[in-house]
Amino acid sequence: MISVTILGAGNVATHLFKAFVKAEDVSIKQWFNRSIDAIRSYKNEVEIIDDLSQLKEADLYILAVSDDAISELSSKLPFENRLVVHTSGSASAYDIDKKHKRGVFYPLQTFSKAAKMDFANVPICIEAIDKPSYPLLKTIALSLGSPTKRINSDQRRVLHLAAVFVNNFTNQIYRIGHEITESEGAEFDILKPLILETAKKIQDMSPYKAQTGPAKRNDKKTIKKQLKSLENNTHHQDIYKLLTASIQKTHGRKKL
Amino acid sequence: MISVTILGAGNVATHLFKAFVKAEDVSIKQWFNRSIDAIRSYKNEVEIIDDLSQLKEADLYILAVSDDAISELSSKLPFENRLVVHTSGSASAYDIDKKHKRGVFYPLQTFSKAAKMDFANVPICIEAIDKPSYPLLKTIALSLGSPTKRINSDQRRVLHLAAVFVNNFTNQIYRIGHEITESEGAEFDILKPLILETAKKIQDMSPYKAQTGPAKRNDKKTIKKQLKSLENNTHHQDIYKLLTASIQKTHGRKKL
Ligand SMILES: NC(=O)c1ccc[n+]([C@@H]2O[C@H](COP(=O)([O-])OP(=O)(O)OC[C@H]3O[C@@H](n4cnc5c(N)ncnc54)[C@H](OP(=O)(O)O)[C@@H]3O)[C@@H](O)[C@H]2O)c1
Ligand SMILES: NC(=O)c1ccc[n+]([C@@H]2O[C@H](COP(=O)([O-])OP(=O)(O)OC[C@H]3O[C@@H](n4cnc5c(N)ncnc54)[C@H](OP(=O)(O)O)[C@@H]3O)[C@@H](O)[C@H]2O)c1
Repeated sequence: MISVTILGAGNVATHLFKAFVKAEDVSIKQWFNRSIDAIRSYKNEVEIIDDLSQLKEADLYILAVSDDAISELSSKLPFENRLVVHTSGSASAYDIDKKHKRGVFYPLQTFSKAAKMDFANVPICIEAIDKPSYPLLKTIALSLGSPTKRINSDQRRVLHLAAVFVNNFTNQIYRIGHEITESEGAEFDILKPLILETAKKIQDMSPYKAQTGPAKRNDKKTIKKQLKSLENNTHHQDIYKLLTASIQKTHGRKKL
Repeated sequence: MISVTILGAGNVATHLFKAFVKAEDVSIKQWFNRSIDAIRSYKNEVEIIDDLSQLKEADLYILAVSDDAISELSSKLPFENRLVVHTSGSASAYDIDKKHKRGVFYPLQTFSKAAKMDFANVPICIEAIDKPSYPLLKTIALSLGSPTKRINSDQRRVLHLAAVFVNNFTNQIYRIGHEITESEGAEFDILKPLILETAKKIQDMSPYKAQTGPAKRNDKKTIKKQLKSLENNTHHQDIYKLLTASIQKTHGRKKL
């Protein structure tokens, strides 16, 4: 049985806790958070603590805390030479104090406390600065039912950047769809099946092949009409122009 | 039994044909395409024709042809005073020749011939210039198992614009995610669960609430690092800047 201690009580920590509870080969040793209130409701399921000096020995310590807190928290841990990882896409593995065996356990997903998560849909990107620790980290990820991928810091940096595009920027595009429809007496809800289908389509088809629409077809009449109807919102108009030009660049059409 | 004739043999026509074959209350009278080759393989399932003079009487004629062809094709139809609709999000209902009863039957989805489509996920936006035809159009949409929505031309224009954002622009963002990962030795595939989850999340949560990430948190350090790693692609950098600013505008942060 592998023992794991979780530090932090945010989105990632909470989902990791729930997933580890179900995992067969892993037991949760302790759950630390600087403010105990956030985890008090779990006190019957696990030992909860808010004092680092109470930390017991475990095979792995997962720092699922804000990027900025990783460095300080790791240096305050009252032990050395044990395996300590963070869960960040952007923080360096070297942010962890060098007295520890260091690694990264980056779940490439978007977590909110409210939304359920099946870890089969959470690829775990593993980096082991302490190379002999890699198999243990992989075993733990597999025990969650997650696909795993061994990556280096450069690849993680790239994946996190791409994740900002496909998650945050895509979500903002949805938001603009929301603004456009609701401001003109149409309903955003009616777009939801299209949004889901657009995401499903590229699961087995490249986004290049999946593209359709006025920009790809170079349908100047429609593009002009749509730009005109965005006249009152230059901000939306700028995004329309830039992404239309981007599609045309990708598909070898002339610029607007 | 309602009789329907389909004109055109592209993505939309083909999916409509397959869905009508399964619909209980609708029979397909004929399938027309100017080039018969595109529909020859269906000749045992339906009467196929490539000559407009062979068109028989039907309760509804669906012009699922390129936007630019709607006007001409509708005027060439050798009858009048029958119900004729097109399937376009952007063409006017008045593009259909005025000798007909006119309407629009706009499926708000993205179709490719290759990908399967469950019409339960295809909201049909109905517009009836000939008002008494509305109930028939609604019945036909329901027979496909589709949700339906009665809309006017302004709402359809807005929905089509919003669809360009959430479908074409989102897909282009996926494409950029593809370019960023593959150009740096990471794999696009690992982003697919995140892409799906991002689309699923807003099925019951507003995109406003669903937003996370460096722009929303105003995490200047990460934004600066990511802009730097896009240095070699000013085009991607411009999109990063504009969408980051857009998120900050939505969530009340200062501009970059
Ligand atoms: N959310 C995601 O979708 C996601 C996905 C992949 C990776 N990540 C990464 O996972 C990590 C955690 O993200 P999250 O979304 O779970 O964050 P979060 O919900 O904001 O939670 C942050 C946690 O860090 C704790 N914390 C903050 N500063 C601290 C300090 N100085 N000392 C000790 N604890 C401190 C907070 O404690 P309090 O409860 O006392 O405030 C809280 O429990 C980050 O590195 C993030 O980049 C997040
Ligand atoms: N694809 C989508 O995701 C989607 C979604 C919603 C609405 N729509 C709308 O649905 C309609 C059809 O789109 P689509 O994607 O199915 O198009 P498509 O795959 O490009 O097919 C176009 C069809 O129109 C026919 N056609 C073109 N010019 C013609 C002419 N002058 N006379 C007669 N037939 C002509 C073509 O005949 P040939 O086979 O002989 O070339 C072809 O069968 C358009 O109004 C489009 O805006 C499309």
